Amino acid sequence: MNAITPLRRRRLSVPTVTLSHGGGGTAMRDLVEDVFVSAFAGDAAAPLEDQARMDLAALAAGGDRLAFTTDGFVVDPLFFPGGDIGTLAVCGTVNDLAVGGAVPVMLSCAVVIEEGLAVDTLRRVAASMADAARAAGVRIVTGDTKVVARGACDKLFVTTSGVGVIRRGIEVGIGKARPGDVVLVNGPLGCHGATILAARGDLGLDADLASDCAPLNGLIGDLLDAAPGTRLMRDATRGGLAAVLTELAEASGVGVLIAEEALPVTPAVRGLCELLGLDPLHLANEGVLVAVVPREQAAAALAALRAHPLGGQAALIGGVTSERPGRVVMDTAFGQRTIDLPVGDPLPRIC
Amino acid sequence: MNAITPLRRRRLSVPTVTLSHGGGGTAMRDLVEDVFVSAFAGDAAAPLEDQARMDLAALAAGGDRLAFTTDGFVVDPLFFPGGDIGTLAVCGTVNDLAVGGAVPVMLSCAVVIEEGLAVDTLRRVAASMADAARAAGVRIVTGDTKVVARGACDKLFVTTSGVGVIRRGIEVGIGKARPGDVVLVNGPLGCHGATILAARGDLGLDADLASDCAPLNGLIGDLLDAAPGTRLMRDATRGGLAAVLTELAEASGVGVLIAEEALPVTPAVRGLCELLGLDPLHLANEGVLVAVVPREQAAAALAALRAHPLGGQAALIGGVTSERPGRVVMDTAFGQRTIDLPVGDPLPRIC
Repeated sequence: MNAITPLRRRRLSVPTVTLSHGGGGTAMRDLVEDVFVSAFAGDAAAPLEDQARMDLAALAAGGDRLAFTTDGFVVDPLFFPGGDIGTLAVCGTVNDLAVGGAVPVMLSCAVVIEEGLAVDTLRRVAASMADAARAAGVRIVTGDTKVVARGACDKLFVTTSGVGVIRRGIEVGIGKARPGDVVLVNGPLGCHGATILAARGDLGLDADLASDCAPLNGLIGDLLDAAPGTRLMRDATRGGLAAVLTELAEASGVGVLIAEEALPVTPAVRGLCELLGLDPLHLANEGVLVAVVPREQAAAALAALRAHPLGGQAALIGGVTSERPGRVVMDTAFGQRTIDLPVGDPLPRIC
Repeated sequence: MNAITPLRRRRLSVPTVTLSHGGGGTAMRDLVEDVFVSAFAGDAAAPLEDQARMDLAALAAGGDRLAFTTDGFVVDPLFFPGGDIGTLAVCGTVNDLAVGGAVPVMLSCAVVIEEGLAVDTLRRVAASMADAARAAGVRIVTGDTKVVARGACDKLFVTTSGVGVIRRGIEVGIGKARPGDVVLVNGPLGCHGATILAARGDLGLDADLASDCAPLNGLIGDLLDAAPGTRLMRDATRGGLAAVLTELAEASGVGVLIAEEALPVTPAVRGLCELLGLDPLHLANEGVLVAVVPREQAAAALAALRAHPLGGQAALIGGVTSERPGRVVMDTAFGQRTIDLPVGDPLPRIC
């Protein structure tokens, strides 16, 4: 934690980050104030603190359990259509909290910066984080800054952690799927993974792609209101939809049967997958919610998702079965095929 | 957050980390289970979860405020006399919580691993984290794993975040020092910084040095029992004692006067500082507590520190004055000198 008291607001006079900006002295204080305090503290009503504090009574008003999660981000490139590493770092942790049934309350932000990074790059990332936090209704309340020598990291890594509150009565969990339940997604698969692939540039692709990176907590709030019996939710990040479905099948001891024709996939993602021999089920997403809901609440759940700006293309993609526990099977035009958890993502540094 | 359900416990068959270990698939699951789940989950009574949860009522039994903090660790080398990056990552965040008056409850751990790192190195670091967490009485409850290509980071970075609870009635803060207060430290200055300097190896030093890296929460608990009026506490990490004192002088609008002869410094650290022209006040520490206490509680505070294994060499090093607000002055054998916040640490990647 930076022992930084935000006493002053200075604009750095140097264009790039140097090792002294990570040394705990005046240089670091100036960097933190210029870049992070000014972006996150907003109107200074809630200044960035070295240790964030919150009344437990205020938290308890929102629910009966605290949720806590963390996620590191090493995406390459830092900026891509639809977002950047800052957007990802906020949305990723907000979504990790939200899919566990928690209302996100506050985030921390720890950065490792490569010496020589442009200060303006950091300012852009911090601004994206502030925008995403505002969209999600959370505050970034504390942080840390480290600088390493040129070559000791690739430009910028960001780790966010988050604290949220789970409402009384909400009981979701990866092991709670039951035969007869249905599986829903809020929108098209693979947009983030396909976008990063294309943004790497070395493929010569210029497709009409953008990351789906978005905070899902609002959508999830609406879903839980409409379908309070929701069994479990996951955001399908690394490993894609395939990873989520195989995980829930194993953890719940159930089979999952999905229909390929029901999967929402954009023409741009489908085209890129066909070109490169990839499967949209394995591509990473940063704004795709997978929800397992009791059949009798399916219609209400689907309507709630579709009524939200992030759920216009929500779809019922399959159901939970008692057959083949632990296995995920997909109906395709050519018969059934088994969906496996991949060994790894087809693309490193996807998030 | 790793969407990992700890269903199985496998030992990895490969000796080094590959990119597929960060891809969200079976390889990552195997790595996380071999290295982190097995180290942190202990007897599996409290398995590592993808989202940690805790009853708010149980937290509220310990105090009235939640504390939340984060810290990234990029120390080079990973292993050094007295600890390693894992020890540091746990102690650093435990100490950030404790100096704010909080009792640490749970930690998260996010790692960025360079492709090619030996799995045994990771196992050693995870074991150190588990040991330090046990010593501090906290649990590591959630984590994340990313792998980047060779050359995209230097071996291993660890980011920990922590949640703690502040007892009702404890009101410490960097702006609360008052003229007449005294300044205490629990032990010798500069051991961590001097150890890392020597461990870098490129100086040809072979001094009798070890990092002071330790969890301070037990010591701090004893201090607060003995001196409940304690104004503020800080652990003197990057920037050393000088950074803490200048920060509290500025934030509290007071002067600080310390006596050089009262500063505890080991012969090994003093020797290294004289050799290299460094100042022990600017060297980083990872187990040095600085506390400002009302004068009438000074004796009780000092006795409490000295009675603890981490406070045997505790000392009263100076006092808070109304003169020269915002300035730190040291009495030396050659008269008074002003202590400034350094621009940066003399050594990059100290923690």
